[in-house]
Amino acid sequence: MTQTTLGIHDVGSAAALAEVARRDASDPLRRYRDAFVLPPGLIYLDGNSLGPAPKAALAALHTAAHEEWAQGLIRSWNAAGWWRLASVVGDKIGRLIGAEPGETVVADTTSANIFKVLHAGLALRPGRTAILTEKSAFPTDIYIAEGIAHSTAGVTVRLSDDTGADFAKKLDGDVAVVLANQVDYRTGELRDVARVTARVHAAGAVIAWDLCHSAGAMPVDLAAARADLAVGCSYKYLNGGPGAPAFVYAATRHHAHLTQPLSGWWGHAAPFAFETAYRPEPGIRRLMCGTQPILSMRAMQASIDLWDDISIADVRSKSMALTRLFIDLVETSCRGHGLTLVSPRDDALRGSQVSFAHAHGYPIMQNLIARGVIGDFRAPNLIRFGFAPLYVSQRDVHDAVVILKDILDSGSWHDPAYAALSAVT
Amino acid sequence: MTQTTLGIHDVGSAAALAEVARRDASDPLRRYRDAFVLPPGLIYLDGNSLGPAPKAALAALHTAAHEEWAQGLIRSWNAAGWWRLASVVGDKIGRLIGAEPGETVVADTTSANIFKVLHAGLALRPGRTAILTEKSAFPTDIYIAEGIAHSTAGVTVRLSDDTGADFAKKLDGDVAVVLANQVDYRTGELRDVARVTARVHAAGAVIAWDLCHSAGAMPVDLAAARADLAVGCSYKYLNGGPGAPAFVYAATRHHAHLTQPLSGWWGHAAPFAFETAYRPEPGIRRLMCGTQPILSMRAMQASIDLWDDISIADVRSKSMALTRLFIDLVETSCRGHGLTLVSPRDDALRGSQVSFAHAHGYPIMQNLIARGVIGDFRAPNLIRFGFAPLYVSQRDVHDAVVILKDILDSGSWHDPAYAALSAVT
Repeated sequence: MTQTTLGIHDVGSAAALAEVARRDASDPLRRYRDAFVLPPGLIYLDGNSLGPAPKAALAALHTAAHEEWAQGLIRSWNAAGWWRLASVVGDKIGRLIGAEPGETVVADTTSANIFKVLHAGLALRPGRTAILTEKSAFPTDIYIAEGIAHSTAGVTVRLSDDTGADFAKKLDGDVAVVLANQVDYRTGELRDVARVTARVHAAGAVIAWDLCHSAGAMPVDLAAARADLAVGCSYKYLNGGPGAPAFVYAATRHHAHLTQPLSGWWGHAAPFAFETAYRPEPGIRRLMCGTQPILSMRAMQASIDLWDDISIADVRSKSMALTRLFIDLVETSCRGHGLTLVSPRDDALRGSQVSFAHAHGYPIMQNLIARGVIGDFRAPNLIRFGFAPLYVSQRDVHDAVVILKDILDSGSWHDPAYAALSAVT
Repeated sequence: MTQTTLGIHDVGSAAALAEVARRDASDPLRRYRDAFVLPPGLIYLDGNSLGPAPKAALAALHTAAHEEWAQGLIRSWNAAGWWRLASVVGDKIGRLIGAEPGETVVADTTSANIFKVLHAGLALRPGRTAILTEKSAFPTDIYIAEGIAHSTAGVTVRLSDDTGADFAKKLDGDVAVVLANQVDYRTGELRDVARVTARVHAAGAVIAWDLCHSAGAMPVDLAAARADLAVGCSYKYLNGGPGAPAFVYAATRHHAHLTQPLSGWWGHAAPFAFETAYRPEPGIRRLMCGTQPILSMRAMQASIDLWDDISIADVRSKSMALTRLFIDLVETSCRGHGLTLVSPRDDALRGSQVSFAHAHGYPIMQNLIARGVIGDFRAPNLIRFGFAPLYVSQRDVHDAVVILKDILDSGSWHDPAYAALSAVT
C-alpha cells in the first residue's frame, strides 16, 4: 500500500477508511450533518449550486403554509412578521458577511440586486461612467452590466482579462464601480476582499462584491475591508432552498446617497401611506422593490438560523481540509486519465470547490451522477465539485474518489447514453 | 319586514337567510369553496389582497419541498421540470388573460415587471420619451416610472388626473408607453381594456396593462384588445400564496424587438452555455432575469391549475352578484352611519371589490377584523372588501353586513383600542 503523509492515498483501502473515519470523528461540525435531509446512497457535492434541505426549513415551510398563510391569511403580514422578514433574515445573513445590522436585506434575485448595486455605484461616483468587471465573472454579472450600459446614456462596461495587470490598467479614473466575485464560479479561485477593495478605493471607485460562492463557505468581512456594496445568493452554501431570494448589502455610510431605479413600493419610506411620489426608506430597505416570496423566504429563514451557533472559522478550516483531500486523492488515484486541476492548489487561494478540466467532462459527470456522486459540469470542459462543510464528510470525499476512479479506470463514461443526457444545471 | 326586489334587504331575517341559501345552492362555482382552506368563523373579503390557500397548493408545496428539493436536489432542475416552470405556469395564466402560449411568463415581482415593460415600451417607440400613467394608479406603478425617469436621460413621467379629458390631453405624440390599471385598486373602477388600448394606439403609443386586480376576477382578453404588454400579480385572485412571483406578458408581434435592462442570465438564449455576452432568448423568456423561488412557484402552480375547469364567465357573473348584493345590503341596512360608496354602482364598471369611504374607516375596519370579517383599509379613508367568487358565498356577504351593521349601530368601533392597532396591509 502506498503511504503518503496523509496516509489515505490508496483509496478504498482499510487504512484509508480508518483514516477518514478518524478525521470525521474529530470534526467539530459533524453534528450538523443530521440537520439536513441527505438522500441515502448519495454523495452530494453540488451544494455550491443548490444546498440540501435543512430539516428545520421543511418544518418552517409547513408552518408558514398551513398556519401563517392558510389560517392567518392577510393578518400574517403583521401577526407573523412577514413585513419585516426581509430585514430579519437579511441581518442574520449580514452576520455571516461582516455587516452591521441594517446593512443587509433579502430581496429579489442576485441578478436584480446586481442591477441595483451597479446603478447605486454609478450614482455614488457622478462624472464617472464605466463599470468594470471580469471576463470570467458569472455571466449574469456581465449581462446585467450590459443591460445598464444599453439603457443608460454614456455608461460603458469594461471586462478585464485577469485580476492583475489588465485589471489595474482598466481601473482608471473613469471607473465608477467595480463588480468582483469573491470566488470564481468556475475555478474556485478566491480573491482577497480587503486587498481588491483597497485597490478600487485607491482608484476612486466603489466596489460591489458578488458573494454567491463565498457566503456560508468561509469568513467574509465586508466591514473590515470597507467594502461598499455586495450581493449574494441564499440557495448555495446557505441552503435557503431552490430559487430562494437573494440578499443585498450596502455600507451604512452610503445609505443616504443610495439610489437605484427599481424604486418599487417596498423600498418606500411609508409603503402603506400610498403616497403618489417615491420617497426612499432611510436605510437598506431602499434597495427593496416588490413583495417577496414569503413561503420560500420562511424556509430560507430556518436555513439561515442554523448558522447562529456555527463557527465560521471551523467551516473554513474543514472546507480547506475537504478540498485538499479531494485534490490529493484524485491526483494520486486518477493519474493518467486526462484530468487537470484548474482550482488553486494553495489552500489560501481556493474557495470551497474543486474543478478539474477534462476533454470529456460532460459524460464523466453524467456517469458520476448516475453512480450517486452529484457534482456539476460547467462548459466547456469542467467537472466541478462543491464541498459544503456542514454536511460533507471526509468519508464522502473518499468515496466519491473511489467512484470517479472506477469510472475512469473502467471507461464506463464512454457509454454514449451519458453524452446524450441533457442537463441544464 | 322591508321587502325589496332582492327580497333580502332586512339583513339577519329568516327571509334574508333563506334567500341567500337559495342563491348559494344554485351557484355553479360552489364546489370550489371546498378547494380552499377557510378558517372557521371567518368571512374572508380580502382575497383581492391575499388569496386563501388552495388545498392543492399546500400539497404541491409539500411535494416540492420533501421530494423535489430534499430528495431530488439539484437534479430537480431537469427531472422535476423546474427549469421550464416559469413558462408552464405562465401559459396557464396566459389562458386567463387572453394570451397565446408563449406570451406570458412568471417572473420576479409586479414592480420589477413594470420596470421591464415600461423600458420595453420606451424602446418600441424610439424618439418618444414620456411615460403616461394615472395619479390614482397603485403607487408602485408611479414609483417605478419615476425610477426610470431618474435613471434614463430624457424620459419623463406624466400623471393624468382622470381617464377622460386630462388623459386625452396628456396622451400626445411624445408618449411612448401608457401604464394603465384594469381595475383601480382603491375604488374598484373597471376600465375598458379594448377601448383604452385603441385610444393609446391611435396616439401612436403602446400600452402596458396592470392586471393585478383583474386577473382571476373577470374575463381579460389582451389579444382581442391588441394590447402590447401587461403585468400582474398571482397572489390576489389567483391565490398563488403570499408574495408568489408575478407574471409578465408581451404580444408575440413585439418579441423580436423587446428589450429591457434587467438582462439577467435567465433571459439569455442559452443560460447554461455561460457565454460572455448577452443574447436574449427569442421569445417571452427574454423578460426573465434571475432564478425564481421554486417552492413559492410550486404552490402557485397548483393554485393556477385550479382554473383549468373554471368558467371565467361564471366568475364574472357571480362577482357582479356578490358586489351588488353587498352594496345593496350595506346601503339599505347601514344608512345614516356616514358610509359613502366610492365604487361604481353600475355592475359593468365595477371590478370584484367594493369600497366605502368613512371618516373613521380605520377603526371600523379593525373592529370588523376583530369580529371575523376580513377586509382592509386604504388610506386615507376607505374600507375595502374583495369578493372572490371561488370561495365567497352570498351567505358570507349577508353575514358580513350583519356584523358591519352591528358595529355601526352599537358604535363599538369607538373603542380607542381599534384606532391604536397598527396594520401594514
